Amino acid sequence: MIDLEQLALAQQTIVDAGDVLYRAGQVPATGGNFSLRLDGAHMAVTASGRHKGRLTPADVMVTDFDVTPVGSPQKPSDEARLHGQLYQDYPEAGAVLHTHSRAATVLSRLIEGDTLKLEGYELQKAIEGVTRHDTLLEVPIVDNSQDIDALAEVVRGRLQGLDTRAYLIRGHGLYTWARDMAGCLRQVEALDFLFDCELMMRRTR
Amino acid sequence: MIDLEQLALAQQTIVDAGDVLYRAGQVPATGGNFSLRLDGAHMAVTASGRHKGRLTPADVMVTDFDVTPVGSPQKPSDEARLHGQLYQDYPEAGAVLHTHSRAATVLSRLIEGDTLKLEGYELQKAIEGVTRHDTLLEVPIVDNSQDIDALAEVVRGRLQGLDTRAYLIRGHGLYTWARDMAGCLRQVEALDFLFDCELMMRRTR
Amino acid sequence: MIDLEQLALAQQTIVDAGDVLYRAGQVPATGGNFSLRLDGAHMAVTASGRHKGRLTPADVMVTDFDVTPVGSPQKPSDEARLHGQLYQDYPEAGAVLHTHSRAATVLSRLIEGDTLKLEGYELQKAIEGVTRHDTLLEVPIVDNSQDIDALAEVVRGRLQGLDTRAYLIRGHGLYTWARDMAGCLRQVEALDFLFDCELMMRRTR
Amino acid sequence: MIDLEQLALAQQTIVDAGDVLYRAGQVPATGGNFSLRLDGAHMAVTASGRHKGRLTPADVMVTDFDVTPVGSPQKPSDEARLHGQLYQDYPEAGAVLHTHSRAATVLSRLIEGDTLKLEGYELQKAIEGVTRHDTLLEVPIVDNSQDIDALAEVVRGRLQGLDTRAYLIRGHGLYTWARDMAGCLRQVEALDFLFDCELMMRRTR
Repeated sequence: MIDLEQLALAQQTIVDAGDVLYRAGQVPATGGNFSLRLDGAHMAVTASGRHKGRLTPADVMVTDFDVTPVGSPQKPSDEARLHGQLYQDYPEAGAVLHTHSRAATVLSRLIEGDTLKLEGYELQKAIEGVTRHDTLLEVPIVDNSQDIDALAEVVRGRLQGLDTRAYLIRGHGLYTWARDMAGCLRQVEALDFLFDCELMMRRTR
Repeated sequence: MIDLEQLALAQQTIVDAGDVLYRAGQVPATGGNFSLRLDGAHMAVTASGRHKGRLTPADVMVTDFDVTPVGSPQKPSDEARLHGQLYQDYPEAGAVLHTHSRAATVLSRLIEGDTLKLEGYELQKAIEGVTRHDTLLEVPIVDNSQDIDALAEVVRGRLQGLDTRAYLIRGHGLYTWARDMAGCLRQVEALDFLFDCELMMRRTR
Repeated sequence: MIDLEQLALAQQTIVDAGDVLYRAGQVPATGGNFSLRLDGAHMAVTASGRHKGRLTPADVMVTDFDVTPVGSPQKPSDEARLHGQLYQDYPEAGAVLHTHSRAATVLSRLIEGDTLKLEGYELQKAIEGVTRHDTLLEVPIVDNSQDIDALAEVVRGRLQGLDTRAYLIRGHGLYTWARDMAGCLRQVEALDFLFDCELMMRRTR
Repeated sequence: MIDLEQLALAQQTIVDAGDVLYRAGQVPATGGNFSLRLDGAHMAVTASGRHKGRLTPADVMVTDFDVTPVGSPQKPSDEARLHGQLYQDYPEAGAVLHTHSRAATVLSRLIEGDTLKLEGYELQKAIEGVTRHDTLLEVPIVDNSQDIDALAEVVRGRLQGLDTRAYLIRGHGLYTWARDMAGCLRQVEALDFLFDCELMMRRTR
């Protein structure tokens, strides 16, 4: 059974996150999607096609990690599967945010290899598990695909054995996960800062 | 007869769109104009010279598609004719937005040919009729002119046979149309995102 | 005699303009100053050193065009003299705004000559007296100086015979004037748009 | 004894500064910290790890200048020591702000030497002690370190004999101090303007 009080809280937390992220330019044009883990098999996740800056609790539905809806006639976003995959593989993940900033989109296209490497930024320490600015922070980049099940498997393969909390889909955006929504929002803010800095470094040199 | 309830709703929808677009930097210095289709021969459209972030319903007038005012002593914007032309040629168009962002202005001047080509961006899917990121999205560019009737004919010629929802006037701005205002605002947001990304790609390489 | 009702209105108009301009990044760090013509010999102008985003009517004082205070123990900004000079030389000028945007500062330093030339932008038409996008808009640039009386004379010399509504001080910012505050705010918005576009054109080519 | 009325005022002043700085993008992802001098031996300073845009008075604690907490079980930020060092060495310093803007981060990494040199900007005059635009403003840059005590000594050495109100930590951010919080906020705003301008100059040339 889904805990309905927990669900109501999760829905409001996601509505509030959407407001913050939309105003920060992270989810333009109905892009992006957000979720919170409810238990070992379910998540609360934004339904398909909603304006992310004007969510209501009714725009947040329950599915299992294979994206089968629970108690809702709504259609989850296709990309909800990428959220489910992260909850399956990372038991400590409590929140997942997928955002579409300009910097994430452009940087993921400009980098020809399959990894963004960040080093020497104090703000790296805003990512869970990072305690020093002088370590290498690696963000995997995977190619975009309209076949989300296949994409989920590619992501699973890329993440295996890596100690990371984020990956980029090329020309598409960022996925990041953390213990809770506050930490996940902090990571979006920090990563977008780092992406902007990287672009500024490349542009100004 | 104009349906007055529908008109009042259209006026408020346009006032609200102006507020959103002004705050997003899309219509500086009284630039831009907005409209909604009322029926097969009429549109509600912003009057000339208004501050687009502080519209009131009285700033939105009715004209036919050749821009003859109906029941109003106000002067429509000269460019209202470009709205009328789109409603004449695209029966499914319910809303038209003309915006002046920095990115639209600069990109339309930097491109030497007559078409902006976008490919590989997930956000292309926010444009009506686009379902994949890996198709080519073509946005025609026409030269600016102070002769709006002539410009309307040039636009009509360029759009003929193309499956597009947007065009650029060089050094001037964007026209985009959709079934309703929500879709049209989503397209402005997505296209401006794509224009910014293109400029960032060109700048950083 | 100063018309006190007119003065109160002018003070509030300047307070409101400061709020708009500060939020738009035009007057950081107490920079900038604003004025309105009161009659053929007096202006209402911001006092020295105020935070321009949090003005009150008491921060707006009266001086003559040579900057002698009228009925106030406050010190006008040194640069108020540049406002007075414009009211002396342009009887149709009703409002003057001096702003410090990043784009105005950088562009005025990057240009080696003494004139910024703008052409082909639709938004040029937001400047009083400009009716076509395809005319050349010339914005004189003068070198900065801490000797404001000397600077006022240099400006007077540069403007003589030119049909312009704006000039730049190198590394410092913009002066623009118009019939009233609404027109002057529109010009700040349009000019900053044009400065940004010029910088983006130079950067991306 | 700490003056509790003064403390309550300092706490609210810091809460308000955090709101302004967060909205200006100066303290993303819980970065940054803020303080006010209480007396010759104590400061009010933000506790570790707080979201700087949503501070409450309880997030501001008292420590001495060696960062020993007074009357609080909370942990001060490690970097509070850098605030204490400034209050020890500059008796006229009443407020210290540490911020993390994109421009400060990138510029401090792009400059290969140990000093940022600014000249010819009118806004230099917003820094305490600067009265002309045509003097050289030097901002020392020190390398980042996770050993804050050692870093404080490096900073002390670099600042000795310099007439400055600001320094940069490479890849990390800005420290600036002034007589009071209003002056310190003005300096953050002016310095970030100058950093942005420098980056734009380097990028566009």
